[in-house]
Amino acid sequence: MALPAAPAEMPRQFPKLNFSEVDENVRLLAEKVFAKVLREEDSKDALSLFTVPEDCPIGQKEAKERELQKELAEQQSVETAKRKKSFKMIRSQSLSLQIPTQEWKAPSVNPVLSPATPVLPSAFLPVQVPYDVPEFQRVSISGDYCAGVTVDDYEQAAKSLVKALLIREKYSRLAYHRFPRTTSQYLCSMRDEKWKVEDEVYPDFHSPPEENEDPYNLDDAPDNLDYVIKIKGGIPFVYDNKEMMELNEPRSLPYPDLETYTLDLSHVLALIADGPTKTYCHRRLNFLESKFSLHEMLNEMSEFKELKSNPHRDFYNVRKGRQTFHRFDKFNSKYNPVGASELRDLYLKTENYIGGEYFARMVKEVACELEESKYQYTEPRLSIYGRSPDEWQNLAKWFIKHKVYSPNMRWIIQVPRIYDIFRSKNILPSFGKMLENIFVPLFEATINPKEHKELHLFLKYVTGFDSVDDESKHSGHMFSDKSLNPDLWTSEKNPPYSYYLYYTYVNIMLLNNLRRERGMCTFLFRPHCGEAGSITHLVSAFLTADNISHGLLLKKSPVLQYLYYLAQIPIAMSPLSNNSLFLEYSKNPLREFLHKGLHVSLSTDDPMQFHYTKEALMEEYAIAAQVWKLSTCDLCEIARNSVLQSGLSDKEKQKFLGVNYCKEGPEGNDIRKTNVAQIRMAFRYETLCNELSFLADAMKTEQISALSK
Amino acid sequence: MALPAAPAEMPRQFPKLNFSEVDENVRLLAEKVFAKVLREEDSKDALSLFTVPEDCPIGQKEAKERELQKELAEQQSVETAKRKKSFKMIRSQSLSLQIPTQEWKAPSVNPVLSPATPVLPSAFLPVQVPYDVPEFQRVSISGDYCAGVTVDDYEQAAKSLVKALLIREKYSRLAYHRFPRTTSQYLCSMRDEKWKVEDEVYPDFHSPPEENEDPYNLDDAPDNLDYVIKIKGGIPFVYDNKEMMELNEPRSLPYPDLETYTLDLSHVLALIADGPTKTYCHRRLNFLESKFSLHEMLNEMSEFKELKSNPHRDFYNVRKGRQTFHRFDKFNSKYNPVGASELRDLYLKTENYIGGEYFARMVKEVACELEESKYQYTEPRLSIYGRSPDEWQNLAKWFIKHKVYSPNMRWIIQVPRIYDIFRSKNILPSFGKMLENIFVPLFEATINPKEHKELHLFLKYVTGFDSVDDESKHSGHMFSDKSLNPDLWTSEKNPPYSYYLYYTYVNIMLLNNLRRERGMCTFLFRPHCGEAGSITHLVSAFLTADNISHGLLLKKSPVLQYLYYLAQIPIAMSPLSNNSLFLEYSKNPLREFLHKGLHVSLSTDDPMQFHYTKEALMEEYAIAAQVWKLSTCDLCEIARNSVLQSGLSDKEKQKFLGVNYCKEGPEGNDIRKTNVAQIRMAFRYETLCNELSFLADAMKTEQISALSK
Repeated sequence: MALPAAPAEMPRQFPKLNFSEVDENVRLLAEKVFAKVLREEDSKDALSLFTVPEDCPIGQKEAKERELQKELAEQQSVETAKRKKSFKMIRSQSLSLQIPTQEWKAPSVNPVLSPATPVLPSAFLPVQVPYDVPEFQRVSISGDYCAGVTVDDYEQAAKSLVKALLIREKYSRLAYHRFPRTTSQYLCSMRDEKWKVEDEVYPDFHSPPEENEDPYNLDDAPDNLDYVIKIKGGIPFVYDNKEMMELNEPRSLPYPDLETYTLDLSHVLALIADGPTKTYCHRRLNFLESKFSLHEMLNEMSEFKELKSNPHRDFYNVRKGRQTFHRFDKFNSKYNPVGASELRDLYLKTENYIGGEYFARMVKEVACELEESKYQYTEPRLSIYGRSPDEWQNLAKWFIKHKVYSPNMRWIIQVPRIYDIFRSKNILPSFGKMLENIFVPLFEATINPKEHKELHLFLKYVTGFDSVDDESKHSGHMFSDKSLNPDLWTSEKNPPYSYYLYYTYVNIMLLNNLRRERGMCTFLFRPHCGEAGSITHLVSAFLTADNISHGLLLKKSPVLQYLYYLAQIPIAMSPLSNNSLFLEYSKNPLREFLHKGLHVSLSTDDPMQFHYTKEALMEEYAIAAQVWKLSTCDLCEIARNSVLQSGLSDKEKQKFLGVNYCKEGPEGNDIRKTNVAQIRMAFRYETLCNELSFLADAMKTEQISALSK
Repeated sequence: MALPAAPAEMPRQFPKLNFSEVDENVRLLAEKVFAKVLREEDSKDALSLFTVPEDCPIGQKEAKERELQKELAEQQSVETAKRKKSFKMIRSQSLSLQIPTQEWKAPSVNPVLSPATPVLPSAFLPVQVPYDVPEFQRVSISGDYCAGVTVDDYEQAAKSLVKALLIREKYSRLAYHRFPRTTSQYLCSMRDEKWKVEDEVYPDFHSPPEENEDPYNLDDAPDNLDYVIKIKGGIPFVYDNKEMMELNEPRSLPYPDLETYTLDLSHVLALIADGPTKTYCHRRLNFLESKFSLHEMLNEMSEFKELKSNPHRDFYNVRKGRQTFHRFDKFNSKYNPVGASELRDLYLKTENYIGGEYFARMVKEVACELEESKYQYTEPRLSIYGRSPDEWQNLAKWFIKHKVYSPNMRWIIQVPRIYDIFRSKNILPSFGKMLENIFVPLFEATINPKEHKELHLFLKYVTGFDSVDDESKHSGHMFSDKSLNPDLWTSEKNPPYSYYLYYTYVNIMLLNNLRRERGMCTFLFRPHCGEAGSITHLVSAFLTADNISHGLLLKKSPVLQYLYYLAQIPIAMSPLSNNSLFLEYSKNPLREFLHKGLHVSLSTDDPMQFHYTKEALMEEYAIAAQVWKLSTCDLCEIARNSVLQSGLSDKEKQKFLGVNYCKEGPEGNDIRKTNVAQIRMAFRYETLCNELSFLADAMKTEQISALSK
């Protein structure tokens, strides 16, 4: 037929197909789809053919397992490994040539054989890192220097943040608290100082006695130093001897006085309300969260694979520390046996007419179960109130008499902030006296252990101090450098939180320095903080605490949250108990904090769960895993954090985390022990370095000014 | 005092500070914080000092404005610009040297002056792109080649996806439907073909008459071709003349027969149920979403700045097309005037005893308001039922008699899928007759316009066909290549959706080819699709439609969603009307689709909103902006999409979008007209290129096999 040709610009080919040419499987599958649709139309069952199992945890888990099996099978094949490598090489080339133009040709296919291999963008090459880590996909941002803020704001924010970090470093070093090595290295480089591993400061915890050693051995107490201790105005002074005390010439121990503390606190307080800094931190935190979600998306399977190739280790048999927060004696009426507070005194206190026997037996039962379960540790709290100087002696005697020691327990001393109650009952004349009751016995036992053998022994198993009470209570007093000193604080008003924290810190700090001199173990200050009440609590703790419990209110302040991230301040969170108290479970920020890279751990916070011990902590983890869809790697990261945060000794940490646990990043992780993927470790480490490098770059103003001339 | 020295490893310095050394501002701010805390403790007001205004839109907007002002001010300063540049250079160095080691020193500060500048990682250098775009921060992934799937799965998924894209390209080209240039370029390169701009196929829309021209001029109808048209078995055949028809020798026009269509459909159907492909697409879509969120986080302010520097243009004065979906005649009882369907016939139809006068007046009122508002366009639907061959003639006469033409309107013909109703009332003998009634008049008006002047004129203002009805209705018939042909389809059963779509497509396609030969405008097939019912509807539309309305069910199939993304199939969504019908507003996937980069636009879908026209579309945008926190750039991107998707002529699109609107990426965008940031355009474009490059890389199997030998 002589027909007009189709318009030249359009090829009119429409090749006819028929079924014989088509894969039989395709035909069958398509028929199945049509038939299914016909039978069930838009029913759930029909849709499941096309969807991925997003809302169904079991389906998801199965799908993941199948993927893993396939990948593992693939890994065995040399041929596939080669193809994979070739893909990557092609990919690294094609990325730079992705955008088609008129002259565009598909990127050259043969990178190996091509004579003039172009210089590959190094971001797409294997990253050069000083440690060994399985390959993973790194998220990087080109042209990123200070996302979305002005240069002035960036500089100002960075400088203030660095100053805040330097302040925390100063307070931490002096108290033998922990400060992350990486952050410290960056701070050094900013001051053009050389960072040295010898300069690092660590807390010192007593290693548990060997199996053949007697944990109650009272015979190794060191000699008397003959020093004299006196707490004046809340500050402990140590004298060489009585004469020196009378001459009022104390040994020199540097400490931050109230004015210094107030000024340092003011810097951080002003910072957290500073507009540009808020914006900067808010943006960085958002970035951290998104970056993690992208990391997970890209590397979830690789992390999973790492863990699966790790033999004989899963979440159940990695070590988990556990902090039990609340005071044994502060049960609400629900937990008073038979509803009577007299019975609480009877059963749950260490000082009562049966010598705390019931309580001791309960603790030992729990310890027994922990020892059997092997992988769980706990840090129960014992109260010292500061009502009388005998409390320590009684507690130590109770401990020894009832043989409460357990290798799976480390003890924390909690001091309730209830001066006002004691003062109103006229038990105490001043806040100063309370501090004396709490700390003088400790100094005395440190100076002359031979005279305080029981306390000296007991203190070996104590690793820190907690400060507890309802944070939402108002003190009614405005903290400042003009606040009355503790000896003059004789009113019935309770001092504010920041005041409590300052004096507790100074006493622990000076005590630690004295104990360190004698080669004795040191204590950490680990207050409950940020569960409720004022945001200033978290500022005080930023200076004075080694780590905190709760930290919920970090949610409210991007600056503080970012500072807690940069300083990797350990935060022990307990969503189940917050749940009943202050915050709905799903609103708890633990997941968000974890994703951003804050140093969080998971704890149980309800002593009555002691009754179901074997399950309590696992329950807390299980619920977190379910509600927030945490992966095994997430859970193991949290468990690893919890051991790091704990008062377990260096020796134990080496055993549970690996000999290099003090190193940061993948080098500090032994996956065989922790079951945390090295990919995860590398991501966390490189991300922290990236954030710190922003601060470091901003500190180079002078040079930049010179450059811009 | 002769005291033992402090342990050598710890510097014991704790410099005392006092207030005179400290910035007075810091002191005042800190005091303010303390005082505020004392007065209001954890009240909202106290917290607002530390938080960023996240939940408060006004606060956020103000904060953004302040940031912008600062940035703009900064931009003025030459000195700051230099500093910024220096920061970036330092940054590009420090990134590669971020990880501190024992020997680590802070990265060299002086990149300009240093004698041996190291080779910078090019990912951190300004990216080399062939277009002009303001600097922005690009998210890149190192080592990314096929995130988290095995090499085999990756290859298989990529090949099947490419095949599906080739199928759509084939159907689109033949029907003068649109196919994105970038995807086409990649598909060419995969076949080692050279892409040429001349090979591109575009729909052809009639440019509106000039102001001095008469839109109702009937005198320019071309001559009769003397062809003969006959629809047999639902397929139109064109003959040179009556004799050729009697000899049964039609003109050759290639078209996909039912078997070919079924096979192509089967490929895509099998693909969307294929496990590895589902996983691959699901992962890519998740990645697209996260990547956008990171992009926004990093570049929101830069995009905002671009828009603010764009004078005399904001969202209100960019062009927006609008599709009005539902049939004028298919109001539910609520909209029946006074509740009586007789009144609906009276007022809202074009064929009634007052000649559709009331309806014409209503339309003209709306048109008038649109013309005044200037920036809004609409594509109202007019029904052709296929009951009788006169419908077209009557519609065209109504259009001309009532002078319904408006430069702000383009007409779409909707064909309700209600063969079953007509058949049961014995109005039609077969489905074939319905197709004849719909399409024969169009072929005749195309072959002999002089004989069908009114219809010929009216068709200039018609740009496409819609297929409408409740998608959740079941047909009860299973579609296959064995389905009866339309002439034999005489039962009262309604044919299934895929059957309707196939025959509509074939008729439009062949009609378009004939019209193109004559230099007449072509039509798009734009069915309602994926609002409810079976997922197979979206597969049929993937082959046959230029664009679709709704597409909600793409949510359920990652494979289809990803294919719609790669092929950039326009989707007109209407969350407000879906809202009342099928889906809660906040669950509507528009925002998610937009973020991932699907080609979505926003429309109103309720003709009764014609009463409030001036506000209706703006209302739809305003609610979307509020509920989903869309930025101005988001809104303008949607508006630009809506113009691209519309049936506006090339001339109008050049005027509204810029002369290069056919180009992709930033080159195709004129920010002065569209108010879409070039940064956004570059992000979308580079992201699409990245996704396509994954497919391209996977097609190189042979070469890869050779490499891996």
